[in-house]
Amino acid sequence: MNVNGRHYRTIWLNENGWAVDIIDQTKFPHVFETVTLRTAEDAAVAIKDMLVRGAPLIGVTAAYGMALAMRQDASDQALRQAYELLVATRPTAINLKWALDEMTRVLKPLPPSSRAAAAYARAAGIADEDVAINQAIGRNGLEIIAGIAAQKEPGAVINILTHCNAGWLATVDWGTATAPIYTAHDKGLPIHVWVDETRPRNQGASLTAWELLHHGVPHTVIPDNTGGHLMQHGLVDMAIVGTDRTTAQGDVCNKIGTYLKALAAHDNGVPFYVALPSPTIDFQVVDGVKEIPIEQRSGHEVSHMTGRTGDGRIETVEIVPKGSKVANYAFDVTPAKYVTGLITERGVIAANREAIATAFPERI
Amino acid sequence: MNVNGRHYRTIWLNENGWAVDIIDQTKFPHVFETVTLRTAEDAAVAIKDMLVRGAPLIGVTAAYGMALAMRQDASDQALRQAYELLVATRPTAINLKWALDEMTRVLKPLPPSSRAAAAYARAAGIADEDVAINQAIGRNGLEIIAGIAAQKEPGAVINILTHCNAGWLATVDWGTATAPIYTAHDKGLPIHVWVDETRPRNQGASLTAWELLHHGVPHTVIPDNTGGHLMQHGLVDMAIVGTDRTTAQGDVCNKIGTYLKALAAHDNGVPFYVALPSPTIDFQVVDGVKEIPIEQRSGHEVSHMTGRTGDGRIETVEIVPKGSKVANYAFDVTPAKYVTGLITERGVIAANREAIATAFPERI
Repeated sequence: MNVNGRHYRTIWLNENGWAVDIIDQTKFPHVFETVTLRTAEDAAVAIKDMLVRGAPLIGVTAAYGMALAMRQDASDQALRQAYELLVATRPTAINLKWALDEMTRVLKPLPPSSRAAAAYARAAGIADEDVAINQAIGRNGLEIIAGIAAQKEPGAVINILTHCNAGWLATVDWGTATAPIYTAHDKGLPIHVWVDETRPRNQGASLTAWELLHHGVPHTVIPDNTGGHLMQHGLVDMAIVGTDRTTAQGDVCNKIGTYLKALAAHDNGVPFYVALPSPTIDFQVVDGVKEIPIEQRSGHEVSHMTGRTGDGRIETVEIVPKGSKVANYAFDVTPAKYVTGLITERGVIAANREAIATAFPERI
Repeated sequence: MNVNGRHYRTIWLNENGWAVDIIDQTKFPHVFETVTLRTAEDAAVAIKDMLVRGAPLIGVTAAYGMALAMRQDASDQALRQAYELLVATRPTAINLKWALDEMTRVLKPLPPSSRAAAAYARAAGIADEDVAINQAIGRNGLEIIAGIAAQKEPGAVINILTHCNAGWLATVDWGTATAPIYTAHDKGLPIHVWVDETRPRNQGASLTAWELLHHGVPHTVIPDNTGGHLMQHGLVDMAIVGTDRTTAQGDVCNKIGTYLKALAAHDNGVPFYVALPSPTIDFQVVDGVKEIPIEQRSGHEVSHMTGRTGDGRIETVEIVPKGSKVANYAFDVTPAKYVTGLITERGVIAANREAIATAFPERI
């Protein structure tokens, strides 16, 4: 999407034709800075230190990490070492392992002399596939938004609430939850986005707000407490969120707090959509509330907050009294009955077992 | 309640017998500091600059402000001037005006020579009445908590979720939502409190956590997004919140985000109680969602966060990108159907028109 009027992906080949450029996402929302990765080690650090984040972008960064490795040494040993180095950076990220396995599948049978070129080509392919999936999600979501617009006064603003960052910064381009938003905005529909701050890591305030701002989409940052009130007063036409994992019956695991917004949407008759690339559907899991273990992260994310001081320094401040315990559950599960539909690259699917199985027969 | 093992109210007569001491609540949660008010002007500044906050405490501070004024000059003119000075400090606080009218009602008929003593007596009376109401709320809420404890394994921890600060710091002592908690804790029931951070002003993380910590009540601060997940997993036995205004039919206006927690409680069969002194019931209002105007506060509260740096300085940092709009709705309304009961000084009352009218026949 656009930053200061210029189109960017979150990862791209450097002008020199072999190094890989990324946006340093640890600097958001106050600083926009790109970083050049020259080795597999650089790629590993970028993933580990969260200069890149979001499952799809992590996968593509790892794939390019393999390409950088092959450029230096394309031996079987180097291939194995690069895999080991990169797979250890974020042990729980599914796309990471998938991308590295895919790279190995392509590269291993080739003679070392062909591997570097093949690695760059496949990494670019994985990136392009992510973009294509998100564009399809955008097109399918656009139909829903256009349908809502058709029921309003001509030219009336369409208010969309989102939680966390399922935006282009988490992918290569377009994002998942944001793909329908950008698509509708680019088509000229008058979109306004309510951006949940998304405590404790503030991905809404720091990432979603940043990307909407730079692409020129009207938006307003709100505390996570606010969505219910807005829905009670007709100020939200629909909600769109992303998901880390959706079950075979359509239960949606996503950033903590998503469930509360889904309840409010249900209580007020506001459509609640989940945008997802279909690999996010986990057919091994059925009852999300019962079966999905919820990661607990460091309490430091709750008790401390980082931002910019009046004179421009980046500072971290403590906001909970010393001695008080804190808890930090990273995700929650929204039962399928509160989900209006799943916006996938194959169309908008009802959040139930039959509809999901029918849409993805090859996976069951 | 207790601070460092010593019992405090939020406002008390100084050892000198005439000045008034308060806790400077702007310094929370990192610093505990008391301030001495010597004049009506001191009291006005304390209210205006929010050294004291919470409707009951504001009322008592204003009453003592009148006493301080009478001590210096007990003329009719001074009485009128003190009233004007104090009533202008927080124009929308109902208790403030009520307390000042009450002081005027008592003082005006008296000869100036009797006014100072009468003012101190009536201010102390208003403070004691607040404490008595909250103790009654505590006793009535204790019965609910004891009932829940009786259904659990003997000695099992009772998990109570609360939102914002309806604690003793907002009152003279005990608080409203916290009164049942302190009462149960002091009786030896094993209470654990989930404290909602309560963005954007963080009254949960900075005030409720602080007071529970210093009174020795086990508690855990959580982001506002977390309550639904905890309720889905049986980790919340009940919720108790306060209210700024409850309608004749039992709709509850309280800090933004309360409604979302009530929805989650309803969805998971968790009892959701509202603790309130009965003057908080507004018999002029019926449908809270439709009729109660919701204050919008400065966006600065959302975009900036104040806390303590690693080296002990208090700093304010910006957490939203420059150029992004923010919105800050201060309250929301929880429809009565999601409220299990109202814990008042007259007992626990169902949140419906008949039950409320029956409990307070003199007010309809």
